[in-house]
Amino acid sequence: MPIAVDAMGGDLAPGEIVAGAIRAHTDDGIPVVLVGRPEEIEPGPLEVIPASEVIAMDADPGGSVRRMKDSSLVRAAEAVRDGRASAMISAGNTGATMASALLRMGRIKGVARPAIATPIPDPVGRPCVLLDAGANAECQPEWLVQFAQMGAVYSRERYGVERPRVGLLSIGEEPTKGNDLVKATHKLLAGLDWDAAGAEFIGNIEGRDLMASAADVAVTDGFTGNVALKALEGGMRSLVGALLGVFDSSDEARAAAEVLVPALAPLYAQLDPENTGGAMLLGVDGVCMISHGSSTAVAMQNAVRTAAEMVEGDLVGHLRAAVTPA
Amino acid sequence: MPIAVDAMGGDLAPGEIVAGAIRAHTDDGIPVVLVGRPEEIEPGPLEVIPASEVIAMDADPGGSVRRMKDSSLVRAAEAVRDGRASAMISAGNTGATMASALLRMGRIKGVARPAIATPIPDPVGRPCVLLDAGANAECQPEWLVQFAQMGAVYSRERYGVERPRVGLLSIGEEPTKGNDLVKATHKLLAGLDWDAAGAEFIGNIEGRDLMASAADVAVTDGFTGNVALKALEGGMRSLVGALLGVFDSSDEARAAAEVLVPALAPLYAQLDPENTGGAMLLGVDGVCMISHGSSTAVAMQNAVRTAAEMVEGDLVGHLRAAVTPA
Repeated sequence: MPIAVDAMGGDLAPGEIVAGAIRAHTDDGIPVVLVGRPEEIEPGPLEVIPASEVIAMDADPGGSVRRMKDSSLVRAAEAVRDGRASAMISAGNTGATMASALLRMGRIKGVARPAIATPIPDPVGRPCVLLDAGANAECQPEWLVQFAQMGAVYSRERYGVERPRVGLLSIGEEPTKGNDLVKATHKLLAGLDWDAAGAEFIGNIEGRDLMASAADVAVTDGFTGNVALKALEGGMRSLVGALLGVFDSSDEARAAAEVLVPALAPLYAQLDPENTGGAMLLGVDGVCMISHGSSTAVAMQNAVRTAAEMVEGDLVGHLRAAVTPA
Repeated sequence: MPIAVDAMGGDLAPGEIVAGAIRAHTDDGIPVVLVGRPEEIEPGPLEVIPASEVIAMDADPGGSVRRMKDSSLVRAAEAVRDGRASAMISAGNTGATMASALLRMGRIKGVARPAIATPIPDPVGRPCVLLDAGANAECQPEWLVQFAQMGAVYSRERYGVERPRVGLLSIGEEPTKGNDLVKATHKLLAGLDWDAAGAEFIGNIEGRDLMASAADVAVTDGFTGNVALKALEGGMRSLVGALLGVFDSSDEARAAAEVLVPALAPLYAQLDPENTGGAMLLGVDGVCMISHGSSTAVAMQNAVRTAAEMVEGDLVGHLRAAVTPA
C-alpha cells in the first residue's frame, strides 16, 4: 500500500513536497500516492488522489477540518482509514493534520489522547524522543503515562534502542520536585512494570538533559514540550547564525572556516531538522507524520522513508500492545 | 552599606567566591562583607560576619533554613533585613537562598510571590529577562501579572531598556493559544495600562523567541521557565562541546580554529553565564542575587557589580511602585 503525501501542505508546497515524494518512489522504491489539486501538481510517475480544497497554514484547525471535507489533509487521512494508503504525511497546518488524523482514523483503542513525538537531536549522540511536543496544552497524569509507554515503543522502533530509558521532564531530579501534574505522574510511572515493557523508567530529568543523551524518551505535557522544543530550535538557530557571522567576518576567518567545513558538515547534518523526517502523531489508529512547515524535497523524502519503516515495523500494532487502556 | 556575599555557597566556595568579592572591593571600589566561617575564609581587606553553619547544595531548602539559624545564608539575609548590608548574593543552594530571603527580608508589600528573573543571552542582541525561572512550580494568573510588571522594571533598571517589550510565553501567537494559565493571564495582561508602566505588552511569544531579541521580558510559570532555561543551557553546552570537538579533530582544524578564536571570543563571552552576574530574586524586600552554583571569581565579581548597580538604582523601590497589589 502506498504512503499518502499531502501535496498541498507546507511553505514550499506543492513543488518541493512533490519532488521529495517522487524521489522516495524513484530512489528508494517506496510506493507513494499524492493527495491534492491535480491541476497544481506535476506528479511524474505517482498517482494522485484528487482533493479540491487546501487548509491554509494559519487556518483554525478544528473548523477547517470539519468544513473542508474535500481538503487534501482530510482526504489523506481518509485514504489511510479506508485502506487505500498505509500512512499519511503532511508539512501543512499541524493542528489540522492532527484533527484530520484524529477525526478520520480515530484513536488506538484505549488511548486517551494522541501525542506529538519529536526527536531532539544530540550533536554527538542519539536523539531523545520528546512527547508531547504540542498536541495537548493541558494534560492528565494518566495521559502522560500513555505518552511514556508510546514513547518507549517509538524509541525502539524508530531508533533501535533495545531498552529505552524513559525520563519525566521536571525541574529537579527528586520525585518531589515539579508541578502537581509531574508529581502525580511520577508516582504512576514508578508503579508500572517497565521490565515487561522492555524499557526503564529513570525518574525525573531536566531541560539540560534533552540534548545530552541522558534519556531516550522525555515525557511532558504538550505546553512544556512545545516551549522546550521551540526554545532549543531557536537557540540553535541563534547560535549557528552568530557562528556563520564570525566565519564571514574577515578574509582570514573565511579561509579558516573553509578548512573546517568538511568536519562541521556531519555535525550540521545531525542537527538539521531536514534529516530527522519530522514528528510522529502517536496514538491515532494509523501512521501519521507531521513534517516541518519549511520542509524541502530532502525533508519530504526522509519523511516518506521514516513512514515506510514505521509501517513495515508495525508501529501501530506495537503501540496498541504497549498502552495501558485509559 | 556593603553587599553581603555568602562565602560558603557554591561549588568553588569559599576560594573563588572570596576572591571575586575581594576583586569587586579592590578593582571596583564596592563595599563588600563576607558571611561564613571565619576559620575557613581568608578575607583579605574584607570584614566577615561570622556564621558557623553551611547549608549544603543539595539540602532540603525549607527545613535547612528553619533549622540552621546560624548558617551563612540566613545570616546574609538577616544582614540585609537589619540594615547592615544593602544586598545579598549566594552561589549556594538556590531553594535555600530563596527561603532565607523570603523568611528574613520578607516580601515587598502587595507581592504575592517572588520570582527568579534570569537573563537569556542573545548572541547578537540584548538579553531577554525570563521570569519565573524556577521559584514557583505552580502559579496563579495574578502572580504572572506581577512577574510581568516586575520584569519590565528589571529590564529597564538592569539593561537600560526604555520601553521594555513584555511577552507571555506560550505555544502560539494568538491569544487563544496556550494552557489555561496562559489564556487567563493573557486576558489580565491585555487589560493593564502598559503606557503608564512605561512598557509594552506584545502578547504571546514562543520558545524560539527567547534567544532572538523578540521580547525584553518573557513571562511564564516557574516550571515552564526552568525547563526552557535549562534546555537552552544544555543545548548551548552540547553544541559548543561538539564544535570544540570539530575544532580539535585534526592539525588542520586546530590551525584554522586558532585563526577564528579572536572573532569567536566576544560571542563566547556574550553567552557565558559567568558574565551575566546571575539571577535576581524579584519581589523580596531587598536585593537578592542567586548566582550559578559553578560561579568562579569572575562570576562573583560580576554579581557584586550587578547587585551594587541595582542597589544604587533603587530597584526595590521601583518594583514596589510598579506592582499592582495582589
